[in-house]
Amino acid sequence: MILTVTLNTALDVTYRVPALRPHASHRVTDVTERPGGKGLNVARVLAALGHEVTVTGFTGGATGRTVREQLTAAPGVVDALVPVSGATRRTIAVVDAASGDTTQLNEPGPTVSSAEWAAFQEAYADLLPGMAAVALCGSLPPGVPVGAYATLVRLAKAASVPVLLDTSGEPLRRGVAARPDLIKPNADELAELTGSHEPLRATQDARRRGARSVVASLGTKGLLAVTPEGRWRATPPARVHGNPTGAGDSAVAGLLSGLVERLPWPDRLSRAVALSAATVLAPTAGDFDRAAYGELLGRIAVTGEVSAA
Amino acid sequence: MILTVTLNTALDVTYRVPALRPHASHRVTDVTERPGGKGLNVARVLAALGHEVTVTGFTGGATGRTVREQLTAAPGVVDALVPVSGATRRTIAVVDAASGDTTQLNEPGPTVSSAEWAAFQEAYADLLPGMAAVALCGSLPPGVPVGAYATLVRLAKAASVPVLLDTSGEPLRRGVAARPDLIKPNADELAELTGSHEPLRATQDARRRGARSVVASLGTKGLLAVTPEGRWRATPPARVHGNPTGAGDSAVAGLLSGLVERLPWPDRLSRAVALSAATVLAPTAGDFDRAAYGELLGRIAVTGEVSAA
Repeated sequence: MILTVTLNTALDVTYRVPALRPHASHRVTDVTERPGGKGLNVARVLAALGHEVTVTGFTGGATGRTVREQLTAAPGVVDALVPVSGATRRTIAVVDAASGDTTQLNEPGPTVSSAEWAAFQEAYADLLPGMAAVALCGSLPPGVPVGAYATLVRLAKAASVPVLLDTSGEPLRRGVAARPDLIKPNADELAELTGSHEPLRATQDARRRGARSVVASLGTKGLLAVTPEGRWRATPPARVHGNPTGAGDSAVAGLLSGLVERLPWPDRLSRAVALSAATVLAPTAGDFDRAAYGELLGRIAVTGEVSAA
Repeated sequence: MILTVTLNTALDVTYRVPALRPHASHRVTDVTERPGGKGLNVARVLAALGHEVTVTGFTGGATGRTVREQLTAAPGVVDALVPVSGATRRTIAVVDAASGDTTQLNEPGPTVSSAEWAAFQEAYADLLPGMAAVALCGSLPPGVPVGAYATLVRLAKAASVPVLLDTSGEPLRRGVAARPDLIKPNADELAELTGSHEPLRATQDARRRGARSVVASLGTKGLLAVTPEGRWRATPPARVHGNPTGAGDSAVAGLLSGLVERLPWPDRLSRAVALSAATVLAPTAGDFDRAAYGELLGRIAVTGEVSAA
């Protein structure tokens, strides 16, 4: 069983309109909605790969109820979300049918009280003992202390559960100092953390700051991994065109599943890059194209070297 | 007890953003939501005036559940909504904080099956006998026949319940032919119905088409009523500035409450115009400003003549 944590869950709503014009009235031609927030996206991909996943984090209000109902409709996902008195946020992606361009409207999410944050930490500590790995994903909702991920990393390490951290800014900086097993920053997050725009240098610096392994996501150029076991680069066969929403979450799911299956690093990275590319190719944002995943998996180039023992 | 019918209920969501820019990402700074659809708005105003109201129409899905919960949280409103398998629509009003301009995104609403439409007619016929008046309000959802309001007008008349119809286009044309007691078109709806842009001529023509009384809403110029008892014009003391959303629904509530209280026409019209102006003045779209309503009520100019007996 893998645990994913999403402190700021969401209901992701997508509207299709002919063309968005400010201050006009629009008839939405198509509405889709599904549970969102990075950790829930990771859980969905893990479940699709055949892993059992428990999801925790906060949900509240009518939107939170919808998130829970839709989440547990998928097989393989166990709901261990903690109730919060505020309402779970919606995100609205308004897609222009003609251009495919998206306008994003993000609700702020509920303010979490200190009692709710304390209740969450207790629930999280109770869940940890049974887990093969835990992923801490996404932004912090208002009210949760900026050092929240550092606390959750320490609790995971105390329970001997491997912990992956995927966030940004100050929560990432504090979380890294608590020595997570793995972080998966993109180039911007890595530069913000380390001050360096040179990927290899920044990745090495992130390790010095506390992360045991760093897998940097370099967009269309694939992944760069610097780990105690060695360093590797994994690149997709060609640039893929499509919607990159959720590609990073699919990479996290690939890395986590590879970790609990004890795959060698090159295989974990191939899986993460193939899942990520197959997500860009999928017609629905955040899903992955299964056929493309299977086809891509054998075509990821991995180069690198194993560390001297 | 007054009955209001809203076949296409909604959850009206308002987002405040600094400024809407197509294809950008926006942090919503403020979210409000409340039950919507014209008949539900009318019911809310009637309840605020101290009347008991039963609401019917269709609701479904998670959004429908939210609508029902928020609706019955208000005192004086009885929920007799009929379930439908599709999901109640949301409308999103995105308000630019700087300019106050609004961009509107309207979901299409559920498609109603013929079995659901049949179930509604039965529920409606069962509700009618206890009612002092009924208001049929707003657009028809997909799947409901265009002659729906004509059917509902006939059922009300068969039960000897006075019936007000507030809709537009072909549903209004068909509904008028079934001889409702009162219609409340705005200038555009009246012109579409009659082909005439001259208010008095168009109002008289609408009566010839079947409406017993016609109260035409002329925007900032107030109301024009042509009835078997006489004809009147009611005008607010000055042009009011604000958000006109819901002003028409407040006018309907004013007319309906005056009808069941058996007020003379000039008093009904004063109430409708004062409520309408107090709605434009309210800070929240669709609410009315109670203090402004009280103050305006004595300052509405009503001119006209009683018909010869």
